Amino acid sequence: MNIDDLRTRLPAGAVVNDPDILAGYRQDRALDPAAGTALALVRPTDTAHVATALRWAGEHRVPVVPRGAGTGLSGGATAQNGALLLSTERMRAITIDTVTRTAVVQPGLLNAEVKRAAADRGLWYPPDPSSFEICSIGGNAATNAGGLCCVKYGVTTDYVLGMEVVLADGTVVRLGGPRLKDSAGLSLTKLFVGSEGTLGVITELTLRLLPPQPPQSTVVATFRTLPAATAAILAITGALRPSMLEFMDAVAINAVEDELRMGLDRDAAGLLIARSDAPGDHAGREADRMLTACENAGATEAFRTDDPDEGEAFCAARRFAIPAVERKGPLLLEDVGVPLPRLGELITGIAEIAERRKVVVSVIAHAGDGNTHPLIVHDPDDADETARAHEAFGEIMDLAVALGGTITGEHGVGRLKKAWLPGQVGPEVMDVTRRIKAALDPHGILNPGVVL
Amino acid sequence: MNIDDLRTRLPAGAVVNDPDILAGYRQDRALDPAAGTALALVRPTDTAHVATALRWAGEHRVPVVPRGAGTGLSGGATAQNGALLLSTERMRAITIDTVTRTAVVQPGLLNAEVKRAAADRGLWYPPDPSSFEICSIGGNAATNAGGLCCVKYGVTTDYVLGMEVVLADGTVVRLGGPRLKDSAGLSLTKLFVGSEGTLGVITELTLRLLPPQPPQSTVVATFRTLPAATAAILAITGALRPSMLEFMDAVAINAVEDELRMGLDRDAAGLLIARSDAPGDHAGREADRMLTACENAGATEAFRTDDPDEGEAFCAARRFAIPAVERKGPLLLEDVGVPLPRLGELITGIAEIAERRKVVVSVIAHAGDGNTHPLIVHDPDDADETARAHEAFGEIMDLAVALGGTITGEHGVGRLKKAWLPGQVGPEVMDVTRRIKAALDPHGILNPGVVL
Ligand SMILES: Cc1cc2nc3c(=O)[nH]c(=O)nc-3n(C[C@H](O)[C@H](O)[C@H](O)COP(=O)(O)OP(=O)(O)OC[C@H]3O[C@@H](n4cnc5c(N)ncnc54)[C@H](O)[C@@H]3O)c2cc1C
Ligand SMILES: Cc1cc2nc3c(=O)[nH]c(=O)nc-3n(C[C@H](O)[C@H](O)[C@H](O)COP(=O)(O)OP(=O)(O)OC[C@H]3O[C@@H](n4cnc5c(N)ncnc54)[C@H](O)[C@@H]3O)c2cc1C
Repeated sequence: MNIDDLRTRLPAGAVVNDPDILAGYRQDRALDPAAGTALALVRPTDTAHVATALRWAGEHRVPVVPRGAGTGLSGGATAQNGALLLSTERMRAITIDTVTRTAVVQPGLLNAEVKRAAADRGLWYPPDPSSFEICSIGGNAATNAGGLCCVKYGVTTDYVLGMEVVLADGTVVRLGGPRLKDSAGLSLTKLFVGSEGTLGVITELTLRLLPPQPPQSTVVATFRTLPAATAAILAITGALRPSMLEFMDAVAINAVEDELRMGLDRDAAGLLIARSDAPGDHAGREADRMLTACENAGATEAFRTDDPDEGEAFCAARRFAIPAVERKGPLLLEDVGVPLPRLGELITGIAEIAERRKVVVSVIAHAGDGNTHPLIVHDPDDADETARAHEAFGEIMDLAVALGGTITGEHGVGRLKKAWLPGQVGPEVMDVTRRIKAALDPHGILNPGVVL
Repeated sequence: MNIDDLRTRLPAGAVVNDPDILAGYRQDRALDPAAGTALALVRPTDTAHVATALRWAGEHRVPVVPRGAGTGLSGGATAQNGALLLSTERMRAITIDTVTRTAVVQPGLLNAEVKRAAADRGLWYPPDPSSFEICSIGGNAATNAGGLCCVKYGVTTDYVLGMEVVLADGTVVRLGGPRLKDSAGLSLTKLFVGSEGTLGVITELTLRLLPPQPPQSTVVATFRTLPAATAAILAITGALRPSMLEFMDAVAINAVEDELRMGLDRDAAGLLIARSDAPGDHAGREADRMLTACENAGATEAFRTDDPDEGEAFCAARRFAIPAVERKGPLLLEDVGVPLPRLGELITGIAEIAERRKVVVSVIAHAGDGNTHPLIVHDPDDADETARAHEAFGEIMDLAVALGGTITGEHGVGRLKKAWLPGQVGPEVMDVTRRIKAALDPHGILNPGVVL
């Protein structure tokens, strides 16, 4: 395929096919070894360029892989042979309206940059994936990203009021807008959130912002046994609405402690970080109730801090868990979720799988949501271990589905989990999915191999 | 069309074609005079019956009009000639799970019954359309109903975790489930919420519940001018997250006062009811800030009450506004929304339209959302006035769209607003809508004439 024609339709420098540059865009954080070699990389600066690229791709039946910051964990942004990689990294405009409390952002801005721009105007954009400093807001919308405060404040879709999308044939549509409520027609905005680049390329988002979050009170508790930790989780979520409720297992605690030396209890089976942002001294009171819940569940150690820096240090430790465990070896990063009462069974079952498959699996979790990230450590040079890791990867998803759960709570299906999706949702839902995909992208140009 | 064949496939009594009974199902609360005569009414008690009815309808190309409690205000449940009316009124099961904090409900249960069942188990189902005592939970999901607490707690879609839907061809699918986060595949659950019976019949909902709402503090304020009232609204929403922020204009105040004799200020141009449910004494403190905002904006009278009964009485008065104004004559009930800063222009513009068209228009609003309900009073026996009322109805939607708003914030497009939808969303979005509709309902059997 000759891309000169596309080059002439776009500004100088927007189309790149230098292999050295392309190499940097081959994979996302799933590090899929099956990544292919793209035809070219397009880095548009505005919507019209995206539309031009998609029209060109449509004419020539060239697949398009949309890409934000490439931090995805399910292979959704992995390069495909002969495909156009469409990176939004140069689409970085933002405007904040303090009166409607909305932000209009281009997709390439990082989540942290959106948060900062909002904060500069005295406002708050809640969704906070652990990767918030390195992932794009467009990627967040495309995957319906979750995070740490979601347990109280919801996920990305809850903040997307409107968007501009370029469809497979290059048509630009505007969905929703800066209105807090809008029932005009089908809920298309919500359909495009979480569509992982398979239905269109998001070129602009209108996001809802909130008044600043009140200061949080933080509880940290360690447990000698996993059942004690899950009992504490259920006791907290059954009575309160924590603004964060995160879990790390022994492997993660030790990996984080190896790196940060914070004095975490290396003998604990699990650690919980729970926060309250209730106004004024109610944060402390809620935190005290969480503390009591942990103690009643048998915490070996539990304390509360109202010091923002100290609280933030524990959250940072939790966010650092994935990179810390990763130092032990490449990870297969899971994202399974279950209804909360099944959390204990999930965690126990994962330990059994790890033992049977002889792999190290560390479990960290957005515990208040029932969303866990089992991290399967493996040595890619050890073919046998890698095979066992992949077995465990699939078995953990099967277990989650058997427990009434989901194969992905927030990272999306991408390419890596596609094979397990029918097992969760069933053939009829796959058929509905296929029909919608065909209706919006009849030639299957957008991110082929993702979800379907 | 002979329905005997359908009758034999369903339990005795499930299919009715007695004209007297059918008459009671001809219209919804939009009272569309263009309502037709249905072929028959089906009142299934379970999902299998719904599937049977849809399969039969599909085979015979008979249109199906799904119906909850018939309180809709956009003609979505209006009988069509030769159509099957499918009423969910006998599908009334509910189970509450206090551990996952979810309710699994059949669609025919009333919103108030869901709220009560949740409250009986110490939980709270937030969405509260003013019609909550008479509308079905299935209708709420099908229209993505809003209400009074949405300004803080969101709309129906924010509480729908999963559903069972019967598609046009009778296939039964399960979407989502009792998991707080789920990114497995397209956001189909969200697509079906608000689809107004055009994509499938909702036969079960899995709803998220919250811990009980804390006691609320209530502020009531009256204003001599509309700009003063809108200034107060913006001051409150700009600084706080009220748990309710409702508005009534002079016509509504007087209509309510005529009926309830509560001592409302009949000379006021507008009345605001604002509430806070912040924990403990923070509710009172937030309410005081709202009170100050009202006073600073020039309220003629403003007071705060922490007495739950007194607060509830004002909310009931607001909920009673539609029926109260209705006593002056049949209403064309509008539902337009705008970005909050345009609320003042919308209200002024509506007054101009009312004057030009010589009709009484009373404006009540979920003010904190920017969602207004202009109530156009008219005498259906006065052909000229009726024509002017319809002119005003359209002009108010045009005005909302011109102000960057929506033709419907919460009631849906139904049949009555269909003509205005393209003007708001544009031809490309209409085309996307048409493609999705065709993908899921290729023979156009489900609620034809709604939205499209
Ligand atoms: C250390 C670490 C921690 C993480 N923690 C979390 C967490 O807590 N919660 C969470 O949800 N995720 C987490 N993630 C995963 C990842 O950061 C998110 O999925 C994020 O939303 C991806 O954004 P991105 O810009 O990197 O997208 P990419 O990886 O570039 O793309 C992700 C998917 O979105 C599509 N896409 C990207 N931009 C667009 C667009 N503009 N239009 C259409 N499609 C588009 C791509 O095609 C792909 O399918 C974590 C990742 C890492 C590495
Ligand atoms: C006095 C009054 C006040 C109101 N206040 C509010 C308010 O504050 N907020 C608000 O949002 N609405 C309000 N409404 C409007 C109305 O109550 C809502 O739209 C409600 O959600 C409709 O529910 P229903 O069961 O009556 O549905 P119906 O009127 O029976 O149907 C509404 C639509 O949903 C479809 N439908 C119903 N059930 C199903 C199902 N199971 N599967 C698929 N499609 C289905 C129908 O086909 C139709 O298109 C008010 C109405 C009145 C009369």
